[in-house]
Amino acid sequence: MGHEKVAIIGSGNWGTAIARLAGINTKKHNDVFDDSRVPVWVFEEQFEGRKLTEIINETHENKKYLPDIKLPDNIVAVPDLLEAVKEATALVFVTPHQFLGKILDELEGHVKKDAKAISLIKGVEVKEANIYLFADVIEKRLGISTSALSGANIANEVAKDTFSETTVGYRTEEEGKLWQMLFQTDKFKVQLIDDVTGVSLCGALKNIVAVAAGICDGLGYGSNSKSAIMRIGLLEMKYFCQEFFRDVKEESFLQESAGVSDVITSCLSGRNYRVAVEFVRQKKSFDELEVEMLNGQKLQGIHTAKDVHNFLSARKQSRVYPLFDKVYQIAWEGLDPAQLTEGL
Amino acid sequence: MGHEKVAIIGSGNWGTAIARLAGINTKKHNDVFDDSRVPVWVFEEQFEGRKLTEIINETHENKKYLPDIKLPDNIVAVPDLLEAVKEATALVFVTPHQFLGKILDELEGHVKKDAKAISLIKGVEVKEANIYLFADVIEKRLGISTSALSGANIANEVAKDTFSETTVGYRTEEEGKLWQMLFQTDKFKVQLIDDVTGVSLCGALKNIVAVAAGICDGLGYGSNSKSAIMRIGLLEMKYFCQEFFRDVKEESFLQESAGVSDVITSCLSGRNYRVAVEFVRQKKSFDELEVEMLNGQKLQGIHTAKDVHNFLSARKQSRVYPLFDKVYQIAWEGLDPAQLTEGL
Repeated sequence: MGHEKVAIIGSGNWGTAIARLAGINTKKHNDVFDDSRVPVWVFEEQFEGRKLTEIINETHENKKYLPDIKLPDNIVAVPDLLEAVKEATALVFVTPHQFLGKILDELEGHVKKDAKAISLIKGVEVKEANIYLFADVIEKRLGISTSALSGANIANEVAKDTFSETTVGYRTEEEGKLWQMLFQTDKFKVQLIDDVTGVSLCGALKNIVAVAAGICDGLGYGSNSKSAIMRIGLLEMKYFCQEFFRDVKEESFLQESAGVSDVITSCLSGRNYRVAVEFVRQKKSFDELEVEMLNGQKLQGIHTAKDVHNFLSARKQSRVYPLFDKVYQIAWEGLDPAQLTEGL
Repeated sequence: MGHEKVAIIGSGNWGTAIARLAGINTKKHNDVFDDSRVPVWVFEEQFEGRKLTEIINETHENKKYLPDIKLPDNIVAVPDLLEAVKEATALVFVTPHQFLGKILDELEGHVKKDAKAISLIKGVEVKEANIYLFADVIEKRLGISTSALSGANIANEVAKDTFSETTVGYRTEEEGKLWQMLFQTDKFKVQLIDDVTGVSLCGALKNIVAVAAGICDGLGYGSNSKSAIMRIGLLEMKYFCQEFFRDVKEESFLQESAGVSDVITSCLSGRNYRVAVEFVRQKKSFDELEVEMLNGQKLQGIHTAKDVHNFLSARKQSRVYPLFDKVYQIAWEGLDPAQLTEGL
């Protein structure tokens, strides 16, 4: 029996898909991992009249967030956070970003000193002139080395074992290989790169590009325009990160699943794309569309565009990122969407 | 009046869209170009009972290949090839590749020594262990410096002035700027890169990737798989060219319209993609589908995959390009399409 004890923090759609892979791989690599039990912290809630943890533990299925997908029998849903991470040496954070603060408050001082973590949390935290990566936030609060995973990963497809790729930005090569062992299967290929920052930022910034692609399709432009938007967006992501984060690697953007592939997927489908299409077609405000299409949740892409705008203003940065700026202007300043490609 | 005299060789869908831009830009930059007359060589044929050249010259419209698009009045259709190029100092080659040999036979010795050319011809010529670029073929036969243009350019969209980008791989920066001036408008952005080879090869190899993407969609795989195929294909294009053509630039593949954008567009629509989807869905042979869907024309992607396979065999190259190879095996060796992502 291996000595690495895994705990998964989060059990939504993506968290459950990832827990399934961890359950399978702890068994496959049980020389490295303790495969007897992989606790998954579940925010307890009622579903069809029963506790979600009970449903998961009895049926081996997360019927609320990933129905019809069987989970390995070593996956154990645990409603108590500290109980879930008690013995863990390898923590996987895969919660919505707004819950992270509270989770870290609770975890601080209760995690093994020699543990390591990986963040699968989407987005970044922007406060005026600073951008914080969740991997860095976790690392600082818990004092443990934290990598990041991001890629062109629709959870349901990963859960159904269709061919997919992802990218792990690692802190040390050894940790990178551990995370690869925990997640990689024949159908889910994990590439490694020494770039936590680039991988994390890709996952946030691509949402701006997806909004631009949605506007483009909403306007009825063709493939030439859309592929140009994607190319320009990918390069702005790269230039922005190179300007403000000195250690990012160009390959994360141009060659990795976290970069080019995730931009492509996000511009073909996904909520940012879909809502932006309707913004142009229906001429409704994003506020209205968030209520109608997202159950009141916020549309990440337009908020990240605003964050980037505020960040650049706070830094009095003169360099302009024309596509990011167009998305900001259209979403927040009433610019006519038909101006999207002007001056690109 | 400028001294550069442009001639366009070819008048199909793409040739006519490009001629329109050349007509507009010779007027705009008439300090550089002779804007009084831009001859376009048209392979004479009958259309609706009249000569195509007559139709173009009387209606200023190529009713057969680019209907409903007005051409500038300085565009003149010329049925005689030598007449069309007689005074030309800037030759634009935009014919189907199978006609190039005959055209060059006729042109040899009849082109001004100080002329320059640009090839918009799609594809490459492969003979056993050698790959020839059409820009090089033109340059060698006519003894004039020849650049190349390629990008995510559906002709009808360019003709309708929707936002598009393209890439010119130039021989000298001065020539690059001349071609940019001839083609660029507010809605058609021309990027320049010192890489005729990379730009030319992108236009050929992306068709293999488009076939793979079509197989992927035909199999009903999702966005994760498709964006992974596009990423892997783009990198194989880059590695292949870097292995056999020492002077190619990585940026042509990863950052230019000719590379990443054209891969995206070709994998979303286009004949290679569409026929490959039906190959899987209808379980018909490519031979049958070429007859049914392409009027008997050959499907470039599968032929380029075979060319690459033969080229690698002739070179006894041990390095494998797994995605290129899978497309070859599926198209020519009866491999089950469901094996597409095995071992990628």
